[in-house]
Amino acid sequence: MKKNPTVAIVGATGAVGVEFAGCMERRNFPVGKLVPLASARSVGKTMKFRGADIPIQELTEKSFEGVDIAMFSAGATISRKFAPVAVKAGAVVVDNSSAFRMDIDVPLVIPEINANRIKDHKGIIANPNCATIMALVPLWPIHKVNRIKRVIISTYQAASGAGAAAMAELVEATKAYLEGKPFQQKVMPHPYAFNLFSHNAAMDLETGYNGEESKVIAETKKIFEDPEIAVGVTCVRVPVLRAHTEAITIECYEPITEADVRKMLSVAPGVKIVDDRVKNYFPMPIDASEQDDVLVGRIRPDTSDPSGHSVALLVVGDQLLKGAALNAIQIAELL
Amino acid sequence: MKKNPTVAIVGATGAVGVEFAGCMERRNFPVGKLVPLASARSVGKTMKFRGADIPIQELTEKSFEGVDIAMFSAGATISRKFAPVAVKAGAVVVDNSSAFRMDIDVPLVIPEINANRIKDHKGIIANPNCATIMALVPLWPIHKVNRIKRVIISTYQAASGAGAAAMAELVEATKAYLEGKPFQQKVMPHPYAFNLFSHNAAMDLETGYNGEESKVIAETKKIFEDPEIAVGVTCVRVPVLRAHTEAITIECYEPITEADVRKMLSVAPGVKIVDDRVKNYFPMPIDASEQDDVLVGRIRPDTSDPSGHSVALLVVGDQLLKGAALNAIQIAELL
Repeated sequence: MKKNPTVAIVGATGAVGVEFAGCMERRNFPVGKLVPLASARSVGKTMKFRGADIPIQELTEKSFEGVDIAMFSAGATISRKFAPVAVKAGAVVVDNSSAFRMDIDVPLVIPEINANRIKDHKGIIANPNCATIMALVPLWPIHKVNRIKRVIISTYQAASGAGAAAMAELVEATKAYLEGKPFQQKVMPHPYAFNLFSHNAAMDLETGYNGEESKVIAETKKIFEDPEIAVGVTCVRVPVLRAHTEAITIECYEPITEADVRKMLSVAPGVKIVDDRVKNYFPMPIDASEQDDVLVGRIRPDTSDPSGHSVALLVVGDQLLKGAALNAIQIAELL
Repeated sequence: MKKNPTVAIVGATGAVGVEFAGCMERRNFPVGKLVPLASARSVGKTMKFRGADIPIQELTEKSFEGVDIAMFSAGATISRKFAPVAVKAGAVVVDNSSAFRMDIDVPLVIPEINANRIKDHKGIIANPNCATIMALVPLWPIHKVNRIKRVIISTYQAASGAGAAAMAELVEATKAYLEGKPFQQKVMPHPYAFNLFSHNAAMDLETGYNGEESKVIAETKKIFEDPEIAVGVTCVRVPVLRAHTEAITIECYEPITEADVRKMLSVAPGVKIVDDRVKNYFPMPIDASEQDDVLVGRIRPDTSDPSGHSVALLVVGDQLLKGAALNAIQIAELL
């Protein structure tokens, strides 16, 4: 890779797109030239980067000439159409959509876990689903020492996972509720003010698992390179703006103690332990927002497994950063 | 019990106290006389009941003369002090606090499960914790046919569980957030607007489980009369007003299918199945609010147990009704 690559951002006006630029600036990513791309209706807008306002260009088949790295976060349909175009033009694509994640030729990377897979890419590297990333960053240091047999996850997912429009809708719906005014939601399928609902990803009618849950299950097996790890997951959207929370119970092949987990996680990259029993202070979305680390707390033996093979955790991470933009930029840095 | 008992409500100005009166009215509970009781500072206020405004009296040692049934919901300290006084005065106490739940002499009753235990009372019958009730109403029909070995619960608990002041604080904190104004919380230990946090019940420093979780674990064993049932639970407060949600995974001694669970729950008292995969419509707090039934959906095999002994559910119920007032009134009806 060039020393000062030209970097395109596809989906530059989206919630993650904006964070791509912010992350690269903050981490001094050696961008030679930034090319913000979006749909035709965003032409005329600009993207803030290193004090400049860079005009957003329309995404077309010709957008990738001279581009070295293309960061995609504009949904799976756009990625399926334009990522191959970018690769053909000579760019390496880091794709935040689900389009290529399960492709056998596409590395699915969380740098703290499998940075070594990046070198196998054939033009596209996939960024995992945000709920997958939050869970796996703290589980990997455990899994690589004491193999995890079973994981049960309940998510408390923020509006940001559905994009900037969903975040705005949560705010607007809540305002309307508090003012006693009617509100017709357009982005989310259900009322969001002071309400929660089973994740709105498409439901598999046969299995009863939604698309978000299926991603967590499949991506965990791929990233851990352990097809036998058994994952149960319930994905729920809660009225929180931008950080995802997950209550996680794991069962290992060998006995495991709370002390083991604390020791493993205290030196784990990307993890910050927030676990103050005296003050009853544990990870919260407002504390994780705009933070790079995944916060982990409530570390304790799982009382549902008297055999001593199970522990429980509460995990919170910024969906837009480690759940999306930061993880992708970390991948790009390794290129 | 008299045909038209005199009923005292202890904690008449609280969120649950108000629901006691509403439930009795709606269910045509044959109240002869209603005696609303609260602290001295509530004297002068009234309680609405059957079109009348009944003056609230100060709770004193003499409040229970002539009272046949005393419904308590004013916290464990008040219950510990005044429930024995009420019993001595000849009343039967239905106590919504945690004060007596684990006493060997006190039946802990969910009428759909163990109404038969009511007759064993020695003056006090305890109403279980709201998170316990929501979980056990749908689990009992399964447990009595195919014994449950292990339960893992993640809760999404509403403000109402911390009382009317907590509900008001959620609203006020959210208003302040939306107006960009500072807000100092007084009821909850953490900011509540668009945030969530590990349940604020006192933490056991040794075990790492908070009081709410310990209640769910101990009460499940007592109500199911199964000391071996292994319960793991993570209790979390979410910014929702009055209905609790729980993601529940159970493992049974014998194999169990999704169809088994649907069949058991379709005829279960107090349960309404809301499980529309085609419309992606499942139980939500706004739908459960002010409803008597516990809503159950997302019924599916648990993908973390390939042996076919586990299923997962999403459960939502009104914390103030089935989680508190309704369950207590159902107990009183059986008296």
